[in-house]
Amino acid sequence: MIDVVSLTERLIACPSVTPADAGALAVIAEALAGIGFTVHRFTDGGPPDGPVENLFATRTGAAPGPHFAFAGHSDVVPAGSGWQSDPFTPVRRGDLLYGRGAVDMKGAVAAFIAAAARVPNHAGTLSLIITGDEEGPATHGTLALMEWMAANGQHPDMILVGEPTSDRRLGDTIKIGRRGSVNMWIEVPGTQGHVAYPHLADNPATRLLRILDRVTKVRLDEGNRWFQPSNLEVTDIAVGNPATNVIPAEARARLNIRFNDEQTGAALVERVRAVVAEEAPRATLTAKISGEAFLTEPGLLSTLVGAAVERVTGVTPALSTSGGTSDARFLSRLCPVVEFGLLNATMHKLDEAVALADLHALTDIYERVVRTALER
Amino acid sequence: MIDVVSLTERLIACPSVTPADAGALAVIAEALAGIGFTVHRFTDGGPPDGPVENLFATRTGAAPGPHFAFAGHSDVVPAGSGWQSDPFTPVRRGDLLYGRGAVDMKGAVAAFIAAAARVPNHAGTLSLIITGDEEGPATHGTLALMEWMAANGQHPDMILVGEPTSDRRLGDTIKIGRRGSVNMWIEVPGTQGHVAYPHLADNPATRLLRILDRVTKVRLDEGNRWFQPSNLEVTDIAVGNPATNVIPAEARARLNIRFNDEQTGAALVERVRAVVAEEAPRATLTAKISGEAFLTEPGLLSTLVGAAVERVTGVTPALSTSGGTSDARFLSRLCPVVEFGLLNATMHKLDEAVALADLHALTDIYERVVRTALER
Ligand SMILES: [Zn+2]
Ligand SMILES: [Zn+2]
Repeated sequence: MIDVVSLTERLIACPSVTPADAGALAVIAEALAGIGFTVHRFTDGGPPDGPVENLFATRTGAAPGPHFAFAGHSDVVPAGSGWQSDPFTPVRRGDLLYGRGAVDMKGAVAAFIAAAARVPNHAGTLSLIITGDEEGPATHGTLALMEWMAANGQHPDMILVGEPTSDRRLGDTIKIGRRGSVNMWIEVPGTQGHVAYPHLADNPATRLLRILDRVTKVRLDEGNRWFQPSNLEVTDIAVGNPATNVIPAEARARLNIRFNDEQTGAALVERVRAVVAEEAPRATLTAKISGEAFLTEPGLLSTLVGAAVERVTGVTPALSTSGGTSDARFLSRLCPVVEFGLLNATMHKLDEAVALADLHALTDIYERVVRTALER
Repeated sequence: MIDVVSLTERLIACPSVTPADAGALAVIAEALAGIGFTVHRFTDGGPPDGPVENLFATRTGAAPGPHFAFAGHSDVVPAGSGWQSDPFTPVRRGDLLYGRGAVDMKGAVAAFIAAAARVPNHAGTLSLIITGDEEGPATHGTLALMEWMAANGQHPDMILVGEPTSDRRLGDTIKIGRRGSVNMWIEVPGTQGHVAYPHLADNPATRLLRILDRVTKVRLDEGNRWFQPSNLEVTDIAVGNPATNVIPAEARARLNIRFNDEQTGAALVERVRAVVAEEAPRATLTAKISGEAFLTEPGLLSTLVGAAVERVTGVTPALSTSGGTSDARFLSRLCPVVEFGLLNATMHKLDEAVALADLHALTDIYERVVRTALER
């Protein structure tokens, strides 16, 4: 038996702010080795984004069966200042356990392991895919693990990512997809001049306005059964001209689009690029696609997870695709992926905390998921 | 006889960067006292914009006649670095006299005085209205002089401002008016949030875009015989949001309108304010009207100045209202005002210089103007 609360505490005590590992993967590796897993660890990348510590652990039963995997991360976002107690010293107060990573997602990783400890190794394969680079650039984490898995013949049939998906109470939300995200930077050069002689100047702010007004007025799509409409937000504009009587020399903006599975990042970039070219032929557009949208159509995996949630909590979970991105965007290339985990209320915040009861319930849910997946 | 070049040199030697006087008005006062003017000097304002030195000098002949005044300033803009020779040490090289203020407008002030010295004091009144605060905020200069004049029964019938109006050659342009100028600052508060949850946020950048797009698309007027169309330029936009995944909390912009005599500053502010109120009810708009548009309809004064210019230079001057603002915007409240002076090519620039021949020609023009004005 592994106590999920104690294991969560041991993980919180490792200050594993991305890309630091601070001993977290050793705690995980030791616990998994103790319950029959073969553990493979490797690092990827170098400073400043790395080196990143990654772990793949697997256990295969005698009887044939599917390959089910839990996926998650051992790294956490920086603590920030203003905590009631040290963020890397786990503290129980009342029914809550406080510490950075309590819900995102050391508690869920501990629940993966505590659940695995309870399931006999009869049939199929159970794996854990754990990275130390989910909160960072994510270039040396899950992607590196996927490469390693491909090279080593590890092909899960279903993956459950343990991100904190629950919104108001444990069990209310399962994520079956995520929107994609793309950032774009637009730089419009102009010709500086005196405001009294506009015909001798070319105001880049005016051109930028035309671009941004057009792209913010386009309705990208209507959304669909599983996704909200894609949405564009202007997140920054900068001209940087201190002189009231001067037409500026340059204007810049940054925008972000969260998009559903009717769009691709590349097509959205081209759509904005076309507007930029029309309104400001001298402008440049730089884009970075953080992730494409993905959807695991409701089916076996979501049904199985939903049934376990309902059985343990009494709550019927909603299937959602809202929120930010997660490493599920990468893993969804391999097989069906859903995300289910703790309450997200305190994630990335001061005094991050998890209810002890939720840790136990989550362990029960994960146990039930694994049993059903491997015994079907 | 007063030598216009020597007097210009003595004035350049005073480093009278606004609001410093550096002895400039003493040079002017001494020269004017020597040719029969009664000189009144006073200071107005305090730090940091002042104290500002001002001068009003007047001379009245025995025969009745109109009151003609020259107006100008003894202050200069900062020299900046990179001059070929010291900006406050007048230097003749070839046919040019170099020094800060050579064309804007110590040369013209010297020409006022040299011209006055040549005109016998027979009829009417000749005055000089000289401030040390034209290049600065202009709050303690010409406006203070106008107050003093009103309190002391000084009411010119015609004023010639000696700003450098000539564009390609001396005499090509007389200004009979100027556009007005107003700056507006728009601050749009929003509700910060994560780009993944736009429904929980209120993006102030979007609202600002709508405002700016609308106000930049309005054609304010078509211009008229004497004025270009009024024109609005967005001179700055700032959101200041470093985070790619955050909808910002505030967006700001600054704009400038140069407007003709079909508009008033206040009406333009209200027009923009109405758009702001529609697109962003929580936004604030702050405005500063630098000056209203004014026009001295072509008539006696412009004809008289134009004839003098043409007689001396052989050039037929164009009547113009283009360019920035000047203190003529204040003086135009008193009586007809036109502006005529040296070439503007080097004003406010490094190596500001005036052609010696232009100083002599300008003196001839001013002499002819005074004679005609007072003897009519
Ligand atoms: Zn996470
Ligand atoms: Zn000037």
